[in-house]
Amino acid sequence: MSYSRKDLIGMIDLSKEEILHLLDTAEKFREINHRDVKKVPTLKGKTVVNLFFENSTRTRTSFEIAGKRLSADTVNFSASASSTAKGETLIDTVHNIEAMSTDIFVVRHAYSGAVKFIAENTKASVVNAGDGLNEHPTQSLLDMLTIKQHKGRLEGLNVAIIGDITHSRVARSNIWAMPRLGINLRLFGPKTMLPLCTDPFGVKICGNMEEAVEGADVIMTLRIQRERQGKLLIPSVKEYARYFGLNAARLRLSNNAIVMHPGPINRGVEISSEIADCGQSVILPQVESGVAVRMAVLYTLGTGQRGIE
Amino acid sequence: MSYSRKDLIGMIDLSKEEILHLLDTAEKFREINHRDVKKVPTLKGKTVVNLFFENSTRTRTSFEIAGKRLSADTVNFSASASSTAKGETLIDTVHNIEAMSTDIFVVRHAYSGAVKFIAENTKASVVNAGDGLNEHPTQSLLDMLTIKQHKGRLEGLNVAIIGDITHSRVARSNIWAMPRLGINLRLFGPKTMLPLCTDPFGVKICGNMEEAVEGADVIMTLRIQRERQGKLLIPSVKEYARYFGLNAARLRLSNNAIVMHPGPINRGVEISSEIADCGQSVILPQVESGVAVRMAVLYTLGTGQRGIE
Amino acid sequence: MSYSRKDLIGMIDLSKEEILHLLDTAEKFREINHRDVKKVPTLKGKTVVNLFFENSTRTRTSFEIAGKRLSADTVNFSASASSTAKGETLIDTVHNIEAMSTDIFVVRHAYSGAVKFIAENTKASVVNAGDGLNEHPTQSLLDMLTIKQHKGRLEGLNVAIIGDITHSRVARSNIWAMPRLGINLRLFGPKTMLPLCTDPFGVKICGNMEEAVEGADVIMTLRIQRERQGKLLIPSVKEYARYFGLNAARLRLSNNAIVMHPGPINRGVEISSEIADCGQSVILPQVESGVAVRMAVLYTLGTGQRGIE
Repeated sequence: MSYSRKDLIGMIDLSKEEILHLLDTAEKFREINHRDVKKVPTLKGKTVVNLFFENSTRTRTSFEIAGKRLSADTVNFSASASSTAKGETLIDTVHNIEAMSTDIFVVRHAYSGAVKFIAENTKASVVNAGDGLNEHPTQSLLDMLTIKQHKGRLEGLNVAIIGDITHSRVARSNIWAMPRLGINLRLFGPKTMLPLCTDPFGVKICGNMEEAVEGADVIMTLRIQRERQGKLLIPSVKEYARYFGLNAARLRLSNNAIVMHPGPINRGVEISSEIADCGQSVILPQVESGVAVRMAVLYTLGTGQRGIE
Repeated sequence: MSYSRKDLIGMIDLSKEEILHLLDTAEKFREINHRDVKKVPTLKGKTVVNLFFENSTRTRTSFEIAGKRLSADTVNFSASASSTAKGETLIDTVHNIEAMSTDIFVVRHAYSGAVKFIAENTKASVVNAGDGLNEHPTQSLLDMLTIKQHKGRLEGLNVAIIGDITHSRVARSNIWAMPRLGINLRLFGPKTMLPLCTDPFGVKICGNMEEAVEGADVIMTLRIQRERQGKLLIPSVKEYARYFGLNAARLRLSNNAIVMHPGPINRGVEISSEIADCGQSVILPQVESGVAVRMAVLYTLGTGQRGIE
Repeated sequence: MSYSRKDLIGMIDLSKEEILHLLDTAEKFREINHRDVKKVPTLKGKTVVNLFFENSTRTRTSFEIAGKRLSADTVNFSASASSTAKGETLIDTVHNIEAMSTDIFVVRHAYSGAVKFIAENTKASVVNAGDGLNEHPTQSLLDMLTIKQHKGRLEGLNVAIIGDITHSRVARSNIWAMPRLGINLRLFGPKTMLPLCTDPFGVKICGNMEEAVEGADVIMTLRIQRERQGKLLIPSVKEYARYFGLNAARLRLSNNAIVMHPGPINRGVEISSEIADCGQSVILPQVESGVAVRMAVLYTLGTGQRGIE
């Protein structure tokens, strides 16, 4: 059970064993994050470049903190402000930074597939930090780490993802990964934000909120990705809150579910404040898991997996 | 004599003993800044986040250098570009970064009281790096450190603050702090930029420039905070320079005063070039004191105050 | 043979011995960049400030990586967003950052001469990272390091620089430096982008592309600096590619020349894709040399040149 790939591009590529290996490694790093001195020297002398072609303060910060806690040199390269404006191609930009003897690229890009394209054209390791509507694999890993932490297992759990499924790379990564770990996945959302086909990839699409929530062990709500939609939002925000938002009455139908959200949350839209702040909410533990998962990924790609000190 | 608070929000909260403790600690750190190797390992493995909701390259840089010299991992989180644009509340943003196992937040915010509100809602330590028109406590501390360095003491000194008092959080922090250390404080400025009440908090408001300057041991000039005023500036810049600017003739009335300014200075407006560059000017020593004071504050909040190496 | 200046402002100032000393030092650092742990402790406790008054993600990143690999604390100070907007003078900004006990400023500025002006007004060491149309000395050093690496020597080589000469600080730095190392330099480009005088500084200006390329050991192509020209581009991009672009037929006239470019390249304009990606292209080795050269410069200025570990 190990992970010997150069890159982490998508959960679609990963076997059950590889996923479990990364989760096990992340559990060790979660412990380091609780120490008084939250730092190990494992990536000292390695250079991690955050190469963000799309803005994301939060995910970048999580990766930056992960890299620093591994003692790597971390560099933020805001690609929007760079030489692409001077006529350079994407791959030329990447080759240039690679030529600075850099080891790992953490890449976010607005176009699906762009991160894979970059990975195929560099000897450096590449971590996908979100590519268009495609994947966001470290988010899927942190979701599973959080579920394992709070439910004690993954196998056999019922997980409901509710909301803007089609525009969510988080949903997509989980749709690839979770069934491989024996999770029963259900999707629900407005018809305008759901895949057109029925039950794709063996994942169940529910007909109404009650069906999605009933007996669920985990309920994951999603933000409406307004920046990826047209001007006219259907349903409207008010309609969305009423018909698709998670509230106390709906949560009561579940199997004492933990409530998740990839953030940032919109209180009163996809999730009520009452639920976001209740004891079943694990939204902040997700963020904590995120640093541990990213340390595990950077560590695994950046080393020959020498033991963690 | 120690400082055992979780946060540093405002000088209004601090006792004479607490202030003196921070100043003593800062004096030790000023020495480290003169060493060949300007670095101590005291905050290794701690994470300091510069959380700036209002831009400030200079203050952020001072805190960033202070954090790095203590071997902390420092992360800049430019909040304007972040998830608040996606509908997230201020406290949710803070909770998210806190969940990444961060230790200290250095926060600047355009609204008075916002930093205190943040501190009340996080277990991390919070340092106020300027909140609206309210306070800027590390600036007050560095002012006092600089005065002590150049005048040998604080007790019994006459300090004149001249300029745009009402819009200055620097003035406000000093108005709270300096009288507690036995400093006699005088204020002067255009009536449009002065508090309406007479002699608030036991601080003297002078009727003219000569009264403010005469016999002063310290003269602190302030920049007009144009970004916090209306379009029409009363007095105009030229009037301000003429009636409220510090020049050689006015400085001669003082008790061989040192001249201070929180920066950035506008030469020829609140201070003449002749004065800014003269031997009595301690504007650059203030900047140097700033790093020492910020090291002292980060060190005090970030440790159980183990001895400085 | 040593380098004992406080600053590196321009190649115009440097003797043959000083240039060779920096190149020798850089060769040692190139080796460190190939190690598993790409880091030496030589600048630990020193503070390097990237002070960029003009944007440049790539050059800043190269300097930032160089500083971090020397274990310096590196701080990015984006001067455009800073206090100059509040009326502060350039030198006051510099004095402020210097007062934070900083050791080296890496400065880029849109105005020729601004970096020298800064260096004359600070005790900190200053490295010119490009000033207007004047110089970009570390680029010249990395060019020579790359030539030496691939041709085994500098003395007696024929180097052709082709393109927008007048707007290129890279060309200018090489025009000062290369003849001192015994390199025969030739220039060619559109008449609108060439110096008006004939054979300035003993450097040959060629009458046509064939004359420039024939027998050359090194061909350096340059990007059209559109941001430094008027709205009307003469020649047009298509004309430029046709009459001044480097392609296979033209390269064949050379003495098996290596092909260089300071980047970012515009494929199909100043250089064809075929040539950019061919075995004679050393564009990416130039980038690699850049980190080594910048480590050498920061190391040389930042230390009493203690031995490299």
